[in-house]
Amino acid sequence: MAGYGWISLTTDYGTFDGFVAACHGTIARIAPDVRVIDVTHHVPPADVPRGAAVLAQTAPHLPPSVHVAVVDPGVGTARRGVVLVSRSGLLVGPDNGVLIWAADDLGGIEAAYELTNPDWMLGDVSRTFHGRDVFSPAAAHLALGAPPADAGPSIDPKSLVRLADPVVSVGDGWIEAEVLTVDRFGNVQLAAGGDLLAGLSPELVVNGSVRARRGATFGDVGPGELLVFADSAGQVAIAVNNGRAVVVLSVRPGDLIRVAERR
Amino acid sequence: MAGYGWISLTTDYGTFDGFVAACHGTIARIAPDVRVIDVTHHVPPADVPRGAAVLAQTAPHLPPSVHVAVVDPGVGTARRGVVLVSRSGLLVGPDNGVLIWAADDLGGIEAAYELTNPDWMLGDVSRTFHGRDVFSPAAAHLALGAPPADAGPSIDPKSLVRLADPVVSVGDGWIEAEVLTVDRFGNVQLAAGGDLLAGLSPELVVNGSVRARRGATFGDVGPGELLVFADSAGQVAIAVNNGRAVVVLSVRPGDLIRVAERR
Amino acid sequence: MAGYGWISLTTDYGTFDGFVAACHGTIARIAPDVRVIDVTHHVPPADVPRGAAVLAQTAPHLPPSVHVAVVDPGVGTARRGVVLVSRSGLLVGPDNGVLIWAADDLGGIEAAYELTNPDWMLGDVSRTFHGRDVFSPAAAHLALGAPPADAGPSIDPKSLVRLADPVVSVGDGWIEAEVLTVDRFGNVQLAAGGDLLAGLSPELVVNGSVRARRGATFGDVGPGELLVFADSAGQVAIAVNNGRAVVVLSVRPGDLIRVAERR
Repeated sequence: MAGYGWISLTTDYGTFDGFVAACHGTIARIAPDVRVIDVTHHVPPADVPRGAAVLAQTAPHLPPSVHVAVVDPGVGTARRGVVLVSRSGLLVGPDNGVLIWAADDLGGIEAAYELTNPDWMLGDVSRTFHGRDVFSPAAAHLALGAPPADAGPSIDPKSLVRLADPVVSVGDGWIEAEVLTVDRFGNVQLAAGGDLLAGLSPELVVNGSVRARRGATFGDVGPGELLVFADSAGQVAIAVNNGRAVVVLSVRPGDLIRVAERR
Repeated sequence: MAGYGWISLTTDYGTFDGFVAACHGTIARIAPDVRVIDVTHHVPPADVPRGAAVLAQTAPHLPPSVHVAVVDPGVGTARRGVVLVSRSGLLVGPDNGVLIWAADDLGGIEAAYELTNPDWMLGDVSRTFHGRDVFSPAAAHLALGAPPADAGPSIDPKSLVRLADPVVSVGDGWIEAEVLTVDRFGNVQLAAGGDLLAGLSPELVVNGSVRARRGATFGDVGPGELLVFADSAGQVAIAVNNGRAVVVLSVRPGDLIRVAERR
Repeated sequence: MAGYGWISLTTDYGTFDGFVAACHGTIARIAPDVRVIDVTHHVPPADVPRGAAVLAQTAPHLPPSVHVAVVDPGVGTARRGVVLVSRSGLLVGPDNGVLIWAADDLGGIEAAYELTNPDWMLGDVSRTFHGRDVFSPAAAHLALGAPPADAGPSIDPKSLVRLADPVVSVGDGWIEAEVLTVDRFGNVQLAAGGDLLAGLSPELVVNGSVRARRGATFGDVGPGELLVFADSAGQVAIAVNNGRAVVVLSVRPGDLIRVAERR
């Protein structure tokens, strides 16, 4: 089997402890030639939708990889571990929805397996650290070329836990959508696809009161002004030139935002 | 000599400056094929016991490596630099205790050398940045296969600076131990080994007033309830399902915690 | 062409999002054998002088590399992307000064090119994420050995945007200089070169009122006392043994500091 030259890691482990290094180490011991790309380890603890969103938006830009995501508040309970086969990469993690959006963005789920193979797990599996003892070693074996079917029994992709679809509504001259993420720069990304902007005139109002302008990049509005644009992940996003939209709008992920033409 | 394919780095340098990259660069210039695993660079500044604990708990999960730890408030003073030979890896850093616990967990110290070889140091050694100028180049030479005895004169392992052993007391139906670390999730890890839990009944009380339950994983208690368990490093730890034990208990590293059977 | 085995990345992207991983991924897809050293991704958003300083102080310690710096408040506007050829490495990024100091410290600019080659850009270039779509792929092609002249038209190095030179004045028994950076440990680095210290006597006063001592390392002064020294980057710096000089002095980058002999 050809296998994969790369493993990506997305976790809520932070970098204050040695958890991430233990995952790197486990991979290196099994598959020393495989290289690891850290997507992020700063998913807020247990924030599964955030983990799912950042992986989905990043994975298409990585080389063909085994993508591991561990945002796993149910670790040690009955929740399954799974291996998903997508058109352009494998995904490994808990069956809680954290892998689903990435699998969709990598071409859809072609097959799914429950991760039960005891030969792939470290001798004495911790009940609280499956990133190190279950998911990283599985990813390493898969990267080396083990067939995904060796992970365990095939499962129906329809049985996988899915996250609720974020709210997106579109009307005549307006979009209403959930905030999907807020990035380092305070830009507010909506669940709506950026192509929806084509239907709106350039002069906009956000949440009924804040003036904004449709554009393509930060310089299209003056300093301190709001820009509504299609961001680098292809989503509708709101930014402030030289400022932080998240502060101006005072929103957080999950909040509804309405972008409407100015009358 | 065979050498090592991996170098691990544990520092209090943070990732805001270029200090870590300068260490990576120094290693790459001397030993370009060696790969680096960052254990953490977020040890609180000058917190030697924290650096020692995180390295000790992570190193056993890494491939055979030269482990560099630089938490070094005495840099530039008379404190020695040392190379320690353990059964399964080398350790390089200041002689202030930061390496000791990891050496113990890697099978014990078989030999120790003072790091004085001028050929291993960068031309003009900074008095304040031995991570870049002394420890990283030494690790690179060792990874390439240089004998540890080339580092400098052999020293008696008994002469190495040791950290005070954390307090652990055990009685009939209770354990009292120092808080060793608090992790990203607010879990409170004690200096007591997890096997001590076998002697306690499942209904517990922490610090005389907070009800807790002995279990194996977070789901063994209800949301908001305290769990006492053996963590992924084999230590007694206290967690709150869906919460932060460090907040509930209001403790920090070095504080004493008493876990007792409920009467 | 020989090319480069290493690419360094300096950005203000943070590590909370997947932006850095997308750059790593883009490089890996084009130049899978090239290795990446992360200088820092924690440049404060849009702080070009800080990005320029950290890269300049780190790049000389890296192996010969293609250095990418993306601190880019003007992304998507008319500001140019450039490739600079220095004596010991290439630099890629926006023409806003972020590359200039590093180029100087790598031996000076021998040639400069505007980055316009459409074959080096990802198919559908985002207007807001040139790190992923323009600079990372350019760096990957250059690392593979593409001639810098393939980047686009040659430009006059004198036409490059330069940052204002930080203020440094020297008199009889005093130095006055701008704060260049403040590091993780609270050490305050000045724009003045460390060799200027040779002209001062050991007993000093900072900003007219705070007593300090000239020395070589932290242990040269007592706990809580101020040390003025030449730091590991060769600059005048002020530290407090066991403390944070930035707090004692209450300064930030850009502020003027006067170090004078005590009378």
